[in-house]
Amino acid sequence: MLDRRQLEALAAVAEHGSFGAAARTLSLTLAAVSLRIKALEQHLGRRLLVRGKQVRPTPAGEALLSHAKQVRLMEADLLAGLQGGTAAGSRWQALSVAINADSAAAWFIPGVAALAARHRLLLEIVIDDQDHTHDALKRGEVIGCVSTLATPLRGCLAEPLGVMRYRCMATPEVARRCQGPGGRVSPHRLLAQPAVIFNRKDALQDAFLAQHFGLHQPHYPRHFAPAVDAFETAIEQGLGWGMVPELHLAQRPGRPALQELLPGATVDVLLYWHHWEREPPSAQRLTQAVRRAAGQALAPAGAGTAAALP
Amino acid sequence: MLDRRQLEALAAVAEHGSFGAAARTLSLTLAAVSLRIKALEQHLGRRLLVRGKQVRPTPAGEALLSHAKQVRLMEADLLAGLQGGTAAGSRWQALSVAINADSAAAWFIPGVAALAARHRLLLEIVIDDQDHTHDALKRGEVIGCVSTLATPLRGCLAEPLGVMRYRCMATPEVARRCQGPGGRVSPHRLLAQPAVIFNRKDALQDAFLAQHFGLHQPHYPRHFAPAVDAFETAIEQGLGWGMVPELHLAQRPGRPALQELLPGATVDVLLYWHHWEREPPSAQRLTQAVRRAAGQALAPAGAGTAAALP
Repeated sequence: MLDRRQLEALAAVAEHGSFGAAARTLSLTLAAVSLRIKALEQHLGRRLLVRGKQVRPTPAGEALLSHAKQVRLMEADLLAGLQGGTAAGSRWQALSVAINADSAAAWFIPGVAALAARHRLLLEIVIDDQDHTHDALKRGEVIGCVSTLATPLRGCLAEPLGVMRYRCMATPEVARRCQGPGGRVSPHRLLAQPAVIFNRKDALQDAFLAQHFGLHQPHYPRHFAPAVDAFETAIEQGLGWGMVPELHLAQRPGRPALQELLPGATVDVLLYWHHWEREPPSAQRLTQAVRRAAGQALAPAGAGTAAALP
Repeated sequence: MLDRRQLEALAAVAEHGSFGAAARTLSLTLAAVSLRIKALEQHLGRRLLVRGKQVRPTPAGEALLSHAKQVRLMEADLLAGLQGGTAAGSRWQALSVAINADSAAAWFIPGVAALAARHRLLLEIVIDDQDHTHDALKRGEVIGCVSTLATPLRGCLAEPLGVMRYRCMATPEVARRCQGPGGRVSPHRLLAQPAVIFNRKDALQDAFLAQHFGLHQPHYPRHFAPAVDAFETAIEQGLGWGMVPELHLAQRPGRPALQELLPGATVDVLLYWHHWEREPPSAQRLTQAVRRAAGQALAPAGAGTAAALP
């Protein structure tokens, strides 16, 4: 078996991006950290780190770190089992998961909080777009991710979780400016008002314009606000119109009133939970909690749009 | 003067990361985009893009893009001036700014929304840690940034904006578990409860433990929730204790009750607005709005901690 101390040194350097920071975290000298990693590289006959201003793992280093993470998870489960079936007396155990921004606070954290407290799990949430998320799952940096992609990675499963439903919202004042004579939203006026967009990969506004107005690749002014609270505050402050998850609309007591621009015109996005096919027990429990939380919060899986989303 | 169409092609490729996406945005053929960029590279005698799966600007390309952005901004101001002193009839104008996550929704967007509507400014908000933020300012990708760093970059000013004050918050249940006999928070019990941390660069929890308990580099379990809504939801759901900005505490009507762990024990962080020394008028107006909004929302600049923060 590989040497635990050498693997820990590798993980610390990869996590902190430098030998110095890793040495401080491990309470070792710089030379000791460097020696452990050189020994591991000689043992495996492969470079594991790319030295530079920011030290990064090589592909071989990444594979090793992913392996070490899975082994640690299995060991933690084994120890919890040996200590009498519950995790009550055991140490905290970290589980990394990647979640889209709109899901994290709205249903994921409330859905898994009780499990985390009961089993002493520490959640390391990664919020990123799904392209990066899938890379993170492939590299073993996360044990699961919420994504709109339906195709599972090799060695993983992709379970449909349900539909996140978005509605086009604005302040009453912005809504009024989008209306033509007769109070109906006119596409021309709508496109003259800025949209609030999460980031350049956020395709929900385009999906709304295509699905409900037949507009493809329209030009319109855009604000970018790449954080959930900033995004919704920008709409509340009248900067523009934007696609807000129905779930968030139900969770904003005391916030300024927003109006639906085109009542009933939703954009539905089907979400999937991607996770390893062979999961250690703690990851299995997390998968069950995710399934349960999504089942309660999301609409049943219908024919959702596969649009990239926040 | 440089050719406008060539610069636009460069900007589009750099923004979208590919020639194909740039061609679609500009409604040009791939060959036309490629030709324009080659012509620009030959004219300047420098490579401007690194070709690859994700096309990126070279340092020379970045310098050119930054120049083009400043020229566009100056032109837009010039045109607005020629059209009679107001921007009412003019086109929308994009201003990129980098803001720390805790400031964006809490005071920045409400503080600049009216200005943006009046002068037809489109806000491109970048939310990132301050290391990246300063690079973005240096490259001219943003025209200003909010940061805790006091030293201005070359050609820039750093104005103190005021103090963001953080308090250590938890659910009543988590707070109870941190208390020893007599109801006082015991450092030992506190460190046995997980903290909720924004990301690995978030130093506020460490600053709190150092300033109020004299604990340096303590070990304690951590959850990571790198988004404001996810961070505060994790605390509300009882996952652990964490440092919440006073400003956010005042803006959460209808949310679950949180309790201050050590009443009065704040961590104060002094924020600065970094901006170009020679600003075009639209950027000057933004700087004035930022100054005014911070003056109203933040505590007066005292002796803040220079801790990295969300």
